[in-house]
Amino acid sequence: MDYVGRIARTRAEMARHGIGILYLPFSSDAAWLTGLDFERPGPTVTNRPGDMVAGIYLDALHGPLVVATQMGGQAVRADAADKPWIREVLILGEPVDYARALRAALHSLHTDGGTVAVPDRAHAGTLLALQGVLPEVRFVSATDTLLARLRAIKDEDELRAMRAVASLTDEVYAAILPQLQPGITEREVAAAIAREGHLRGAETVSFPTAVLFLGGSSRRGRGGAAYSAPNDLPLERGMGIAFDFGFVCEGYCSDFGRTVFAGEPDAVTRAVYDLVIGAQRAAIAAMRPNTISCAEIDRVARGPIEAAGFGPAFVHRLGHAIGRDCHEWPSLIIGEATPLAAGMTFTVEPSVLLPDRAYVRIEDVVLITPHGSENLMRSPRELTVVAE
Amino acid sequence: MDYVGRIARTRAEMARHGIGILYLPFSSDAAWLTGLDFERPGPTVTNRPGDMVAGIYLDALHGPLVVATQMGGQAVRADAADKPWIREVLILGEPVDYARALRAALHSLHTDGGTVAVPDRAHAGTLLALQGVLPEVRFVSATDTLLARLRAIKDEDELRAMRAVASLTDEVYAAILPQLQPGITEREVAAAIAREGHLRGAETVSFPTAVLFLGGSSRRGRGGAAYSAPNDLPLERGMGIAFDFGFVCEGYCSDFGRTVFAGEPDAVTRAVYDLVIGAQRAAIAAMRPNTISCAEIDRVARGPIEAAGFGPAFVHRLGHAIGRDCHEWPSLIIGEATPLAAGMTFTVEPSVLLPDRAYVRIEDVVLITPHGSENLMRSPRELTVVAE
Repeated sequence: MDYVGRIARTRAEMARHGIGILYLPFSSDAAWLTGLDFERPGPTVTNRPGDMVAGIYLDALHGPLVVATQMGGQAVRADAADKPWIREVLILGEPVDYARALRAALHSLHTDGGTVAVPDRAHAGTLLALQGVLPEVRFVSATDTLLARLRAIKDEDELRAMRAVASLTDEVYAAILPQLQPGITEREVAAAIAREGHLRGAETVSFPTAVLFLGGSSRRGRGGAAYSAPNDLPLERGMGIAFDFGFVCEGYCSDFGRTVFAGEPDAVTRAVYDLVIGAQRAAIAAMRPNTISCAEIDRVARGPIEAAGFGPAFVHRLGHAIGRDCHEWPSLIIGEATPLAAGMTFTVEPSVLLPDRAYVRIEDVVLITPHGSENLMRSPRELTVVAE
Repeated sequence: MDYVGRIARTRAEMARHGIGILYLPFSSDAAWLTGLDFERPGPTVTNRPGDMVAGIYLDALHGPLVVATQMGGQAVRADAADKPWIREVLILGEPVDYARALRAALHSLHTDGGTVAVPDRAHAGTLLALQGVLPEVRFVSATDTLLARLRAIKDEDELRAMRAVASLTDEVYAAILPQLQPGITEREVAAAIAREGHLRGAETVSFPTAVLFLGGSSRRGRGGAAYSAPNDLPLERGMGIAFDFGFVCEGYCSDFGRTVFAGEPDAVTRAVYDLVIGAQRAAIAAMRPNTISCAEIDRVARGPIEAAGFGPAFVHRLGHAIGRDCHEWPSLIIGEATPLAAGMTFTVEPSVLLPDRAYVRIEDVVLITPHGSENLMRSPRELTVVAE
């Protein structure tokens, strides 16, 4: 990928917004800018000495300077070895005096009277440490001023990765359908999805897999929470099965949803299914660059669902941008006036929750092309009956 | 658990440190203070509208006030329903104007001239938003001033949970040993550990399970990274098998390590094994409240390893505090002058990496008692040979 070009474009945007220094923690932001890998968060916090100052520092002329903790520092150095656009890797000693480590990191960098930008999802502890060392400097959100907009437009290399992970996800879905036999549990289906993804080379799931059995003896959506983690409920005929899963390949995410039925669904469920499919089709057909906003696309899908009286059962935004993170800026949501632009990639995921019948939800990833849009997913959207 | 008492003790510490308002994101900090559940981070970022202002707000008299995003807000309200010590739950609308939402949240709270405290692992975006709304106020790290010290001393309820998860972890280890037959892969062992934990009621692993086969045809530690994620290498006789895993029960973590051998190890490996076990035993024997520091305990274990010439092969701190998070403050590390205190719980995990033979590492969780220490793990520490 063209990291040298990204660094140059980021510096140009820094200059335009009066930003002197950009700090990034090891994260999807840093991976996008430099190609450096980062550790996915674990289920509980692992504090390493130096965490609050580790990351990437960049000014108009110097850096990227990489600061790594002693624990894991050699792996960072090895990762940087084939990336000549990274100027220096500094490995912290232990124990860590944050203020001193920051002064050392900032020694060769200059704000040139500009602000310092940190992403929204950096640590507050890092921002406090930076503010302590640079008391006269103004701090701004790097997400709002730079990163969200830069990351929203995917280049050809990124789209190749997005297509690859979409295709893998289609294959996993096709492999899962024959496994949906009566008696299999939500948890077993989720495990099978992870296994099928791993077999095809996925790095990880992009978020915790949701598998929801509704209707029949399921308590989901009537008395029980509709969206909790997969449980040990066995599949029965008469249930709807709602999937929401995705994978990561080459650092890029998919996010995919379908609803299928164990046995023929009733007439109301069929009608809702058609409604949701139709809403998604209309939204995708309306997606094109420059002439329509995110909020307007949300409206295109929400309109027919509201008109049919199911508005209160469609409780979330229509979709969100997707890339290195599963949820990126912007969202297809009420109030988001940003126009669609070529190279943006969005999930389009209308839903209707029928508490005692089914959770009908269809989700695909759609690319905005120079003249319209392209659904990156190829999985069928026709009503599908399994376990027959 | 005694959340009312914790809130009172936290307020007393706030007063002592001149803190007017405490903000906590949904996190282990918030779970410790209020009992509210929180979502474990996924493998990629999921941005929800309102994330940057969601969390818990508390002043000397008002709150805890809980601010939740629309997505997931009803689940937060349900979680708070049986917690009368939570004063109010505010669910944000969409779209979210951060500054307005923050002003609404802060409307009933007063800094009373004091500072505002946010934890190190809160979002920098939250801190920027708070600083925008409260421009005249000083901000400090809630971790450094309040939370690390408060959370370090476990009460009886917490110790009950710590004992339960330690015991479950012992049972999983006993169940895994017979499964270590030639041909099983690192990845299969890691999956078996997750399965055995789940069967016994663990909520999740406490961190990504490490299973390292060293020696034999393994490239780990010689040419390959010693500590990467489990791979598809099959177990052979002549390999050492290093485990590092833990679980979460009732919100509390275990963190456990053993090294076993597929076939009899050679004399050097045996000698190193004895050295590491001896270093751990000496450290645990020296652990008692008030009279010895964290750094001194690290020294007790590191001394004999250095004396035997393996100092450079013991590359990390001796251990870290553990509780709701796998890694808490303080660490058993050079430079940490904090004295041990009754109610603290630490991992004690000396190691020696022998690149072409084994990664010998033993890890237990140790409680500081009023008069000494107690190892919460019961798994045998004698050299164990498997796959015979």
